[in-house]
Amino acid sequence: MSETLLSSRNLAFELYEVLDAGALTQRERFADHSRETFDAAIDTARSIAEKLFAPHNRKNDEHEPEFVDGAAVLIPEVKPAVDAFLEAGFLNATREFEVGGMQLPNLLSQACFAHFQSANAATSSYAMLTMGAANLIEAFGSEAQKQRFLQPMIEGRFFGTMALTEPHAGSSLSDIRTKAEPAADGSYRIRGNKIFISGGDHPLSENIVHMVLAKLPDAPPGVKGISLFIVPKYHVNDDGSLGARNDVALAGLFHKMGWRGTTSTALNFGDNGECVGYLVGKPHAGLSYMFQMMNEARIGVGMGAVMLGYAGYLYSLDYARQRPQGRLPDGKDPTSSQVAIIEHADVRRMLLTQKAYVEGAFDLGLYAARLFDDTQTLATAEERQSALELLDLLTPIVKSWPSEFCLKANELAIQILGGHGYTRDYPVEQYYRDNRLNPIHEGTHGIQSLDLLGRKVSMNGGAALKQLVRLIQDCCQRASQFESLSALRQPLEQLLARLSAVTLALLGDLMAGKVNQGLANSALYLKVFGHLVIGWRWLEQAIRAEQGLARLDGGADNAADRDFYQGKLQAARYFLTWEVPACHHELALLEARDDCCLAMQDGWF
Amino acid sequence: MSETLLSSRNLAFELYEVLDAGALTQRERFADHSRETFDAAIDTARSIAEKLFAPHNRKNDEHEPEFVDGAAVLIPEVKPAVDAFLEAGFLNATREFEVGGMQLPNLLSQACFAHFQSANAATSSYAMLTMGAANLIEAFGSEAQKQRFLQPMIEGRFFGTMALTEPHAGSSLSDIRTKAEPAADGSYRIRGNKIFISGGDHPLSENIVHMVLAKLPDAPPGVKGISLFIVPKYHVNDDGSLGARNDVALAGLFHKMGWRGTTSTALNFGDNGECVGYLVGKPHAGLSYMFQMMNEARIGVGMGAVMLGYAGYLYSLDYARQRPQGRLPDGKDPTSSQVAIIEHADVRRMLLTQKAYVEGAFDLGLYAARLFDDTQTLATAEERQSALELLDLLTPIVKSWPSEFCLKANELAIQILGGHGYTRDYPVEQYYRDNRLNPIHEGTHGIQSLDLLGRKVSMNGGAALKQLVRLIQDCCQRASQFESLSALRQPLEQLLARLSAVTLALLGDLMAGKVNQGLANSALYLKVFGHLVIGWRWLEQAIRAEQGLARLDGGADNAADRDFYQGKLQAARYFLTWEVPACHHELALLEARDDCCLAMQDGWF
Repeated sequence: MSETLLSSRNLAFELYEVLDAGALTQRERFADHSRETFDAAIDTARSIAEKLFAPHNRKNDEHEPEFVDGAAVLIPEVKPAVDAFLEAGFLNATREFEVGGMQLPNLLSQACFAHFQSANAATSSYAMLTMGAANLIEAFGSEAQKQRFLQPMIEGRFFGTMALTEPHAGSSLSDIRTKAEPAADGSYRIRGNKIFISGGDHPLSENIVHMVLAKLPDAPPGVKGISLFIVPKYHVNDDGSLGARNDVALAGLFHKMGWRGTTSTALNFGDNGECVGYLVGKPHAGLSYMFQMMNEARIGVGMGAVMLGYAGYLYSLDYARQRPQGRLPDGKDPTSSQVAIIEHADVRRMLLTQKAYVEGAFDLGLYAARLFDDTQTLATAEERQSALELLDLLTPIVKSWPSEFCLKANELAIQILGGHGYTRDYPVEQYYRDNRLNPIHEGTHGIQSLDLLGRKVSMNGGAALKQLVRLIQDCCQRASQFESLSALRQPLEQLLARLSAVTLALLGDLMAGKVNQGLANSALYLKVFGHLVIGWRWLEQAIRAEQGLARLDGGADNAADRDFYQGKLQAARYFLTWEVPACHHELALLEARDDCCLAMQDGWF
Repeated sequence: MSETLLSSRNLAFELYEVLDAGALTQRERFADHSRETFDAAIDTARSIAEKLFAPHNRKNDEHEPEFVDGAAVLIPEVKPAVDAFLEAGFLNATREFEVGGMQLPNLLSQACFAHFQSANAATSSYAMLTMGAANLIEAFGSEAQKQRFLQPMIEGRFFGTMALTEPHAGSSLSDIRTKAEPAADGSYRIRGNKIFISGGDHPLSENIVHMVLAKLPDAPPGVKGISLFIVPKYHVNDDGSLGARNDVALAGLFHKMGWRGTTSTALNFGDNGECVGYLVGKPHAGLSYMFQMMNEARIGVGMGAVMLGYAGYLYSLDYARQRPQGRLPDGKDPTSSQVAIIEHADVRRMLLTQKAYVEGAFDLGLYAARLFDDTQTLATAEERQSALELLDLLTPIVKSWPSEFCLKANELAIQILGGHGYTRDYPVEQYYRDNRLNPIHEGTHGIQSLDLLGRKVSMNGGAALKQLVRLIQDCCQRASQFESLSALRQPLEQLLARLSAVTLALLGDLMAGKVNQGLANSALYLKVFGHLVIGWRWLEQAIRAEQGLARLDGGADNAADRDFYQGKLQAARYFLTWEVPACHHELALLEARDDCCLAMQDGWF
């Protein structure tokens, strides 16, 4: 049977031939691990994802959560799936053994979680949201808060949410209006309305811990006046038992185009003036706490987009191999048999494009996950800081590139299935609908582009950018040892040189105070920067494929490996010669500071 | 109130400033018409579309047709809408006065119909399918068939379908298996299964006339053995009254991602051996009949894609003007008011891109409709033939370009609405789902690309292509009289020159027998050819905008017109300087006969 969630061979290539997961086991934190323990975790993830997550993916879509008596009701298949996930320890995959974790590298945790994301984006979200909320409390909460709220989350009894967005404040968090008034007992009374809160209600856990952004009475205006609060659905008594309902009400559910199985909620805090919240960390520091956890969340969103793309790619590949239709252009004898559509050049193009997008983004997501491990476990503080800077720089790409291009992959998967792909009898249309969320949540595409050009490339004197340039140059240097890769390397070198120059010029504009003009075409910049990064990752994969081919002898038992590496080289060729050079037009617009869009006036539309 | 279906000002610009609809009234067939009668028809269309089509567009989606006791049941709002459409005469807008038509030019008929397509793609489809079927009988049916089947269609009592696709034969019609056996009475007995038959059952008309492709017993293999049959749902007696049910059964309904209000049916013909069909025209000529009607159908599909794009563009434009969010990059004072999101450069980019795609494709669709009028009403047979050749050449673009780029426009409309755009509380997500059908039906994108490069550009010694090149050169020549347009004209001239050379080279390959290689990158060719055509149409619009501006005096009462023309110039600038030059990379791949996708092997995926 063909694989449906991801290619195990490709995952092994990433872990052991590209990203050297084995080297992580040399680090003290991961010393008890080995390829065997890594592979065992992956096998468990695949098994649970296939058996308990994938089977209800369509049902999640067809029977979206319902609002009944003030609560969200889900289909019954979700809880056993999530329970098996918890039982197998994936919620705490990266936590230490002592607290019941698996002490796995983030790289492996993401690799395991990718299976759940591919099998069922909606059901896996409940786990991801809980991980995000738990990590916030772990990083910034008090010991008492950890005891009361984090420990039950680790045990899987409490789930979590991130409650940021308000009706009038989506991208502009600076404008949130939710208030937090200090109470006599040291807690706070929260009052306000939040929307689009994923997982804001569900029957999967005993309690739900909302991580809520709100403003204290003495808050300075803007983002520097935002504080972070723990607001539980049920009060938690000192002995850990559950108390009465807190004054948090489910006001309603949003009905989405896709990703329907995850509740998207409107929550009212403090309608009765009795919503108790607990300040996390210092006053007014809430947004900075959120941002410190953003890398992980955005890697998660990016990987979610990748895995929807991956699922669609594998499905359409299998379909293209099975489905006979038509004949090749030069074989028009109508009495001959029809060929499988994978034989048609344009279907191959659509499959190769999907492969290049999906496997390129998959590599980047795992690369970022490994970088996250570096931020935690490299030997010196300086090395860890350096890794963090690079991760900060790459995060907008890790989040946005798959959101755009793996959605495009899903569009191609539908096209390969033709009329069938447009029906709900096949899964690809759901992947497409599900994936359309990803360019919107956790910072829209536009926000990512401003983050990249307006903040990340210039931070710490451009240190991260310089680091990235060195890495790409090093990759090109190694690629230059393979004559076969010269046609792939050169477009990347050209893009790097020109983008570097444009970056300096744009940063010069920003420093000269031309802020609106300098950032006006940030979307183009994001696109080109993303293609540079994915092009680099494909060149890296191509090097490893050449090395893999060189290791093989000519035996017939190597045929599958040889095919695998050839496919990698062809996908790298596609991306580096079909996609990367197309960026020069966008670079020309950036170089010219083209103001076509900026100069457009409201009245002219 | 802002307009929701299309911009009336833009439609008037197209009809009276770009496409010179007034000149059509000089032709004998349209001599009774005038701008007043044209505008009256448009006003009626807009009014019915707004009052009866738009209000149930969402309900069509939420309550898709149900299969009950062997029949399709629709929501009750569809029939009154369709009845009003019929009552107002739009089904026969182009037919002669004597048969109850309005004798309008096709240009005006399409302009009227565009309102219905924008308001409700699904409900308007029933009318479009009936027009297509009626036109087939009118063009190729016998007098008796016209009396029995066409006349009730003209009267709106019978509706029609096009029944081509079979489970194993979608794009490859050559492989259909439906059989037609001659019966003693001169009719035929049809047996076979068809799928994806839009409008294959519904309660909107007394009878449904299926136009069915099937093979006679002595049929040669392949497309040259396909015949066309009339197969009514109910028998029709000699006096025109309805008889018993014919042996055509609704086997089931397909459940689609979008466009849900139009039934997509599986039909079984002759399960009991008693399905009566009537041969249209000559045996084995069915596919050529279908193809002769294809231009109209494909203009209709293209315009449908445009209008979904248009509806989304107008909705997101209105939203962007109303929705406050954030501040400009250089105005970060958090105590200042939030600005409407239309002020953000990236939102402007997304709006301007939509405008360029939607209004460019709208112009092309109407241009093609006017060309269709030329094929019918130009003075000499030679002129009519020449118009037909150009229309044949443009048809793959008219169909495919909006299907790809107005879908992209819908994606941008969702993005502008952010999280709200992803919910079913707003219409834009439905437009996106509805529009995803268009690159699939009436010939997939891949089929269009093969039609263009493999047939259309070389037909009649390349006569149509030469005609198009002359038209574009003439447009550039006229544009060169405006200094202000030189930056817009030059990219088009460069694209034209290079694409012309590539075309010759590729046709050389095809003539040399390198068929698979020559057609391998036809998707790239389609993209570039489409951008050439839309670029030409934008330059034409820019010329008319400059002429319009020159006509205005400086008075304040001209402000709206001045804004309108400025917007046209800015959108033309966007398309010709942001989109057209980006095609050079695809041209380079075509020039190089790049075989990246063709060389990919099945085993390498």
